Amino acid sequence: MSDSLTLQPVAVIHTPYKEKFSVPRQPNLVQDGTGIIELLSPFNQAESVRGLEQFSHLWLIFQFDQIPQGKWHPTVRPPRLGGNQRVGVFASRATHRPNPIGLSKVALRQVECKNGKVLLHLGAVDLVDGTPILDIKPYLAYADSEPDAISGFAQSQPTPPLKVEFTPEAESAVKKHSKNRPHLQRFITEVIQQDPRPAYQQGKTTERIYGVSLYEFNVRWRIKAGCVDVAEVMSVSV
Amino acid sequence: MSDSLTLQPVAVIHTPYKEKFSVPRQPNLVQDGTGIIELLSPFNQAESVRGLEQFSHLWLIFQFDQIPQGKWHPTVRPPRLGGNQRVGVFASRATHRPNPIGLSKVALRQVECKNGKVLLHLGAVDLVDGTPILDIKPYLAYADSEPDAISGFAQSQPTPPLKVEFTPEAESAVKKHSKNRPHLQRFITEVIQQDPRPAYQQGKTTERIYGVSLYEFNVRWRIKAGCVDVAEVMSVSV
Repeated sequence: MSDSLTLQPVAVIHTPYKEKFSVPRQPNLVQDGTGIIELLSPFNQAESVRGLEQFSHLWLIFQFDQIPQGKWHPTVRPPRLGGNQRVGVFASRATHRPNPIGLSKVALRQVECKNGKVLLHLGAVDLVDGTPILDIKPYLAYADSEPDAISGFAQSQPTPPLKVEFTPEAESAVKKHSKNRPHLQRFITEVIQQDPRPAYQQGKTTERIYGVSLYEFNVRWRIKAGCVDVAEVMSVSV
Repeated sequence: MSDSLTLQPVAVIHTPYKEKFSVPRQPNLVQDGTGIIELLSPFNQAESVRGLEQFSHLWLIFQFDQIPQGKWHPTVRPPRLGGNQRVGVFASRATHRPNPIGLSKVALRQVECKNGKVLLHLGAVDLVDGTPILDIKPYLAYADSEPDAISGFAQSQPTPPLKVEFTPEAESAVKKHSKNRPHLQRFITEVIQQDPRPAYQQGKTTERIYGVSLYEFNVRWRIKAGCVDVAEVMSVSV
């Protein structure tokens, strides 16, 4: 009964979020941050997703693979409580938990099987690029949906706390890439207005410059009295 | 990236379902089949569930521990399609899947911490007694609820196909236990009207007598032209 269970990834997800820091806390907070699931061998068979295109939403069960294994505390400080109030680890969706398993509901846009690849094109996601996917299940509205559920301190969707502005330099850098990345400015805005800083820093004004990697870009920004200045959007070789 | 992940149960669930055969296919199909989660050491600390009582519903991520490990097929035959049509394993919630992980939404009725035990009293469940729980997460209505999701062949809740009747002997056996198990007759009815037989047998009439273990009882029943006769409810020592 307390035997351990060994799992192996069935897929990997490709997303714009190159690091933990930039990932939104729920998938629907950043509409432009879409993802693609690529099934791994031996699971990459068209048969294994037969009929999946009939579903509008999926559950992803994934591994928080950037968390040191075996580390957990009975309580955590969720960002929704400003990062200074503790709740039980099982009363949170914190990444640091006894078993590093995440759960995320995503929209399914297209199932593509070609050249030996099986790809699931998704809507907005909240996973770091390269995250191992442990299971994919169809979303069953009648069983999974509970719109009137009472969700304690997380009852409503968080409202973006920050107003985001681009310096003229950053804006022109973004425009240069508008062919490959048509929604880049909106996407950066959506990510940064969630305030990706650690919760204990939120609401504070510092002189510090933050950097975040999104797609093939390094984005540098600064907080100024409840507002963010995006100072630099620099393309990096990947 | 394709490294394996080893998990350890954080809890165990106590339910009336002593075997796979009797388990409803979704938790809300049998309202009287409630469950209790018992946290295992070292997770059984009141702190680890602090604040959980503010949530009305939970996600359970659990192990299908009665499935031979390593066995999976790219397609499965879901009972919802009569058991004779194949869909991809990732387009189903089948128990036989690459990683034997289940996902279930349950109602949380009470959090009880006493005598070194941490117990979560739940509403209806769809898990076999003793199933290892890998993670417990709060249900977040704004993020998890998608009432208009399109769910393919599983769009609506299955309707109970069978009418259940008790023989006078079975009914009097049930009445004898009404003090300890006040809803026993209703509970047995709810379980059996879902037709727990394998999908390929459903809709067929046979002379066979089926047995199922619920709580501390052996229940024996027979199918007769779309109707079920519960013939015997026998208490067994546990």
